[in-house]
Amino acid sequence: MHLPSHLARRAIDIEPFRVMAILAQARALEAQGRNIVHMEIGEPDFPTPAPIVAAGIAALQAGHTHYTPALGLPRLRAAIAAFYATRYGVTIAPDSVVITPGSSGALLLALSALLDPGDEVLLADPGYPCNRHFAHFLNGRAVALPVDATTQFQPTAAQIEAHWSHATRAVLLASPANPTGTMLPLSALREMQGIVAARGGMLIVDEIYHGLTYGGSAETALALGDDVFVINSFSKYFGMTGWRLGWLIAPEAYIEPIERLAQNIFLAASTPAQYAALAAFQPDTLAILEARRAEFEQRRDFLLPALRALGFAIPLIPEGAFYLYAGCEKFALPGEDLARVLLDEAGVAITPGVDFGRYRADQHVRFAYTTTLDQLEQGVARLATVLPRFA
Amino acid sequence: MHLPSHLARRAIDIEPFRVMAILAQARALEAQGRNIVHMEIGEPDFPTPAPIVAAGIAALQAGHTHYTPALGLPRLRAAIAAFYATRYGVTIAPDSVVITPGSSGALLLALSALLDPGDEVLLADPGYPCNRHFAHFLNGRAVALPVDATTQFQPTAAQIEAHWSHATRAVLLASPANPTGTMLPLSALREMQGIVAARGGMLIVDEIYHGLTYGGSAETALALGDDVFVINSFSKYFGMTGWRLGWLIAPEAYIEPIERLAQNIFLAASTPAQYAALAAFQPDTLAILEARRAEFEQRRDFLLPALRALGFAIPLIPEGAFYLYAGCEKFALPGEDLARVLLDEAGVAITPGVDFGRYRADQHVRFAYTTTLDQLEQGVARLATVLPRFA
Repeated sequence: MHLPSHLARRAIDIEPFRVMAILAQARALEAQGRNIVHMEIGEPDFPTPAPIVAAGIAALQAGHTHYTPALGLPRLRAAIAAFYATRYGVTIAPDSVVITPGSSGALLLALSALLDPGDEVLLADPGYPCNRHFAHFLNGRAVALPVDATTQFQPTAAQIEAHWSHATRAVLLASPANPTGTMLPLSALREMQGIVAARGGMLIVDEIYHGLTYGGSAETALALGDDVFVINSFSKYFGMTGWRLGWLIAPEAYIEPIERLAQNIFLAASTPAQYAALAAFQPDTLAILEARRAEFEQRRDFLLPALRALGFAIPLIPEGAFYLYAGCEKFALPGEDLARVLLDEAGVAITPGVDFGRYRADQHVRFAYTTTLDQLEQGVARLATVLPRFA
Repeated sequence: MHLPSHLARRAIDIEPFRVMAILAQARALEAQGRNIVHMEIGEPDFPTPAPIVAAGIAALQAGHTHYTPALGLPRLRAAIAAFYATRYGVTIAPDSVVITPGSSGALLLALSALLDPGDEVLLADPGYPCNRHFAHFLNGRAVALPVDATTQFQPTAAQIEAHWSHATRAVLLASPANPTGTMLPLSALREMQGIVAARGGMLIVDEIYHGLTYGGSAETALALGDDVFVINSFSKYFGMTGWRLGWLIAPEAYIEPIERLAQNIFLAASTPAQYAALAAFQPDTLAILEARRAEFEQRRDFLLPALRALGFAIPLIPEGAFYLYAGCEKFALPGEDLARVLLDEAGVAITPGVDFGRYRADQHVRFAYTTTLDQLEQGVARLATVLPRFA
């Protein structure tokens, strides 16, 4: 397939998700009648909780099919602000909440408000690939901070200081992080925010896996005050992936320019999704979500020792999200080849490390525990029959 | 309100919609108990047709709440391709259809695939403001082609030739156009496409008001072959504004890079919206839409002569969309001031011409007939009591 003669640089350079090739191959195998265990998908297997679906249906029946304001339904902005008070004990103004089409929309707004062409944002490698692609999309630069188990797979204050340049405008952190599932304590966030603020930059914290934590609760960067951008989503904890709804909390002075950007690039987020999300913070919904959280924790607690026993290196126990980032150096293949072989020979789909960056990417793969315990057990059993040949 | 110290150029420069100030003032007056006739809103007053809502509800009941592929639900891509065959007699490949979060998403994808920073896109002034703002958002340049009634408020081949520069990558046309409601015949589209293609550029045609035409049908630029980008939407004709769903048809060679862009900046369009839209092409839905089209035509046929009688200059009869772009030179105020006065004194909300560009913008206002005939009659009666003071 040749590229067209006229294609913008960003469209030439932006990388595909390698996992899409794995997914396409998995679907092809399934079409041939093969059974595949899916451990590649970054989407909860649970459907949207019934009270949220019911609220969406009620909204449609009530005729809520027109545009909302660009910053979102005022009631939903207020509900999110109230959630920060009850869950985190943090007071934020409803006016600082921007409802977005998925956290993708929130990332696009945040980075487009902060980055001019050539400007830099510092972020972890490995990390969620869209983060660096968004910078690239806006003709900015994502500067990778290589991270490993010695720092809980999180950037350090010293790295931020060392990589800061005249072009740096922001640092993007994620807690819990994808693909590693590790969190940043508030003390670390505070130290890094101090460094970023002293240099005239902005801290952006991706909190889209908040709620999906096992052991302690995640702390929100909003506890540091309002000089921070926080990104969150109704997709992961709240189980609303397909509805495409997220939010951005930004300092007050940014809201007016962000509103102009949102008016132009989105008009607004989905209206039925916003009405549905009003039910996300209800006690009956939260009870469902907590039961799911417990199930994710069970899956992690099964999968982690099982993968270690198979020879994968998982040096620390991830406290959040639904991923295990596993070193595969014990096996004779780079991660991308290993993922292909495991799909082909074991019928187990996983994501190669190269989707998440460059740093030691070939020596890693990511397992998502977004499928049932039964499926995970089956997947591990199949891996056990194939992996020894490559050890 | 001061701007933050660190704000990207695009976020500083991107203009607000002036109509938002009008809308906010209108809401404030309504909160004081004033009755306002809304002729400023670019959104059909009709709710989403019942069969589409029913399909959305059925999708939610069936649990369709997970992500779809980035390019969209295969069945919906096929349904759109089939619609081009039945409505226009034009054959397109389902694989060339990209489902987007509103036509905003389609515009963002099209321009981000074509424009590098500094690159230019030629477009009509007056025109839909987001079109030029998208170019600006991507650090490209929107080059205005001033248009007036002498050319049906549409750019000409000669203008495209005269304004083409080494940096021009694309020409963006709209048919029917906002704010003028005029259309381009296929012969004109063909001539312009020839000029654009000969210079190595790409023609982009915004067809989001297709279906809302009075007299003849709009012709799709896809009849010219596949060397064109076409943008369309479920918002206007199909009445699905709040669902945020549109589409882009692109030449085959662009689909793979557009898929990579879409994966990263959207992930996918709303799943419930895509399932709902499957009902948009059903005969019962189309019957509802045709009845609405007839009602829009009635409104136009009332409002146009009424505004002319009040002294507005509407030199030609718009064949599509739901707007009248009216010259207000007869009145002693520039358009933006006139809009403010008419809201304040007559309780009639309209959009100032400055929202649509620079060319003779102060001498124009836009009336939207997105409200009932009763409301339009009331609005005209109120205008008649206030306007003579400014004539």
